[in-house]
Amino acid sequence: MENENIKDIIEELLQERKFPKLRETLLEMMPIDIASVFDELSEDDLSKVFRLLPKELAAEVFACMDPDGQEHLISVFSSRELRAILDEMYVDDTVDLIEEMPANVVKRILAHTPQETRHQINEILKYPDDSAGSMMTIEYVDLRKDMTVSEAFEKIRKTGLDKETIYTCYVKDQRRQLLGVITVKKLLLSPSDAIIEDLMETNIICVDTYEDKEVVAKMFDKYDFLALPVVDKENRLVGIITVDDALDVIQEEATEDFERMAAILPSEGEYLKTSAFKHAKSRIVWLLLLMLTATFTGMIINRYESAFKSLPILVAFIPMIMGTGGNSGSQSATMVIRGLSLDEIRLGDFFKVLFKEAAVAILCGLILALVNGIRVYFTYDGDMYLATVLGVALITTVLIAKVLGCLLPMGAKLLHLDPALMAGPLVTTITDTCSVLLYFIIASSIAPLFGVIL
Amino acid sequence: MENENIKDIIEELLQERKFPKLRETLLEMMPIDIASVFDELSEDDLSKVFRLLPKELAAEVFACMDPDGQEHLISVFSSRELRAILDEMYVDDTVDLIEEMPANVVKRILAHTPQETRHQINEILKYPDDSAGSMMTIEYVDLRKDMTVSEAFEKIRKTGLDKETIYTCYVKDQRRQLLGVITVKKLLLSPSDAIIEDLMETNIICVDTYEDKEVVAKMFDKYDFLALPVVDKENRLVGIITVDDALDVIQEEATEDFERMAAILPSEGEYLKTSAFKHAKSRIVWLLLLMLTATFTGMIINRYESAFKSLPILVAFIPMIMGTGGNSGSQSATMVIRGLSLDEIRLGDFFKVLFKEAAVAILCGLILALVNGIRVYFTYDGDMYLATVLGVALITTVLIAKVLGCLLPMGAKLLHLDPALMAGPLVTTITDTCSVLLYFIIASSIAPLFGVIL
Repeated sequence: MENENIKDIIEELLQERKFPKLRETLLEMMPIDIASVFDELSEDDLSKVFRLLPKELAAEVFACMDPDGQEHLISVFSSRELRAILDEMYVDDTVDLIEEMPANVVKRILAHTPQETRHQINEILKYPDDSAGSMMTIEYVDLRKDMTVSEAFEKIRKTGLDKETIYTCYVKDQRRQLLGVITVKKLLLSPSDAIIEDLMETNIICVDTYEDKEVVAKMFDKYDFLALPVVDKENRLVGIITVDDALDVIQEEATEDFERMAAILPSEGEYLKTSAFKHAKSRIVWLLLLMLTATFTGMIINRYESAFKSLPILVAFIPMIMGTGGNSGSQSATMVIRGLSLDEIRLGDFFKVLFKEAAVAILCGLILALVNGIRVYFTYDGDMYLATVLGVALITTVLIAKVLGCLLPMGAKLLHLDPALMAGPLVTTITDTCSVLLYFIIASSIAPLFGVIL
Repeated sequence: MENENIKDIIEELLQERKFPKLRETLLEMMPIDIASVFDELSEDDLSKVFRLLPKELAAEVFACMDPDGQEHLISVFSSRELRAILDEMYVDDTVDLIEEMPANVVKRILAHTPQETRHQINEILKYPDDSAGSMMTIEYVDLRKDMTVSEAFEKIRKTGLDKETIYTCYVKDQRRQLLGVITVKKLLLSPSDAIIEDLMETNIICVDTYEDKEVVAKMFDKYDFLALPVVDKENRLVGIITVDDALDVIQEEATEDFERMAAILPSEGEYLKTSAFKHAKSRIVWLLLLMLTATFTGMIINRYESAFKSLPILVAFIPMIMGTGGNSGSQSATMVIRGLSLDEIRLGDFFKVLFKEAAVAILCGLILALVNGIRVYFTYDGDMYLATVLGVALITTVLIAKVLGCLLPMGAKLLHLDPALMAGPLVTTITDTCSVLLYFIIASSIAPLFGVIL
């Protein structure tokens, strides 16, 4: 069923005060779907309908909602209601909530959080936004190495309800150092009197609290983990990251790359929920910069005024040369940027990539020059001069564009900048200048060979 | 440790015939890391070193390797070795293997597969490449609704070893219809004599075998599943999809979008492993097409020959107008394409998006016109005519570009084409033509107001 229909049904049931039926409808839905319908309701309806949910589901739905709805609900919650919701929420979701709320709301949230949790929240908030620490949860199952399998199950049964995942358990020593990990699958397939120490995996892949989010997400992609332990500088286990959060990061990072590659400053928030003013703000910076740099291309054209005054047809081909250069450049930049971001290309592969791009450029350039030559030959009464100028210009333009398209992103990577910054628009603008300059140089220098006077 | 170092260490140990030490080194590594080192070894070394791995790990490593290495190993395996590896592999990995191997190797693989598995493989191979059926595995744990929790654990212990995931179990009736799902977490937290039917979740989200891969991947992103059941037209459970495969699809789809948006035909395979010829092939089609369409822009410029002959400075600003239009268009197209692909934007939001883009365009256009006006005023001795022409041209160009940038992807979506096809280069080329035409129309029509004769 579409959200729109569900929203209508819920509003109707609410108006007719058919609360049991309404509750039943909600219980059949997934938390995220309930949240997205709730985000569309009026504030009055929201407060009424939210209270129909059982406690555990209420907390799940609340965690999935938009900040506006969350803020409204907190403002109408009694102290008891707020405490109940916060009790049910995972600490990492509470941290996300706190990051979105205004100061007075945060104060109220913290006042209703037990002291120990408050301490944990503050610890997580300390980590930078793009670090592993900021995406971890502290709710994991920990075991001791001298436990038997049945003791381990005992512990999981006792503490598992509030853990974000129970399927990977962590074995720590007294100094909280991570000794090993063991999965519930392994536990289930082992005899009940076996000792954890003999079963646990001790080749552990873990990340530092300050590791970049993107690196963490890539590790999930590579190793197919369900969860990954996070340790501090002293190798003490401080939390875990689960695969669902890694998936979110992968999507965010891809969106950021898409934006950077289209010369947009990365923004948070969904498209429709962002104001036109904010959209304009994240786009105008590059537009201004690229508009001003396009002046160089203009200056070059100016210098060749006499050339195109005596042969105006030269002007008509400027868009074709510029367009082909721009498109070739974005193609290479995109391939190289995506390759770098998927670790398919490393900095050490620089020359391999450069030669490959050069080879691709020559192949593409030759075909373009040939097709264009044939067309010009037939359209302009066999004008060999024009066909030659355009052919040579096309080949050199594609070559420059493709070489720049691989040089710029790899250079950015070398300087620890995001390669996506160097994509399409920037490559295009630089290529424009070079290609127009070359075009006129080629046109003037081979003119005498064909007896053309510019 | 970097792969390069590991590779050197392994080759050294191999040369010195220190096999126990070599085996020990490998056992400390993750299967995917072993596979990527193995892919770099010579064929001789590979056959030697592969045989050092214990059976289960060998199968995991084999499944992660490149097709070339896999083919070589199959060619040197004895019948017993091949059967052992195939026995250990999950059916979905075997299917992936078969899809990459030449016919004679496939024949050998199938000859060493038990008849039942062979039947299952053939079933999966029937599904289209981009369907849920092609990414599913048939190795899941199934329970009956009248089992108790302890009977369920019994079954999991007995059959769990060969299952890709045991954490979500599926309850079927005699006609293989899916009745419910239950997680191991729920089982662990319930009394051992409870009946599955009373515990299982019956609001099941599942997908059809023919559902698009991309839709499946999005469901994992939205609902945070670890596994998702796949059913046929008669609602019979035929397999499950696990989160690690969904993650791979998300990465593939993003790469495909990046390629389409840069006017590259989507290709499989890693950048460095693809030949320059193949790269050129996937890029030349759009380059040719866009080169030829750039001719229209040229024809327009031709028509205004007399205008730029009497005022050559007009030519110098063509790159700026075209560049700004192209960049504005890619910005909008990228935002809309990404929004559509993340389901943040739906077709029903068409007018909202259109108005938002128009508002952003006017904001950006005004700022660009102003900044450029000031610059022109000071650079060209207060030439009000030029400042006005460029200002009006910039605003209209940005407006057209941004409107096209949202119209084209949404139109593609409406026609069930991939919106990413309509990105950057195509929008840019259409915008080029429109903007140059408008530029000259504006320049000629307001010339009399300023007493300029073109």
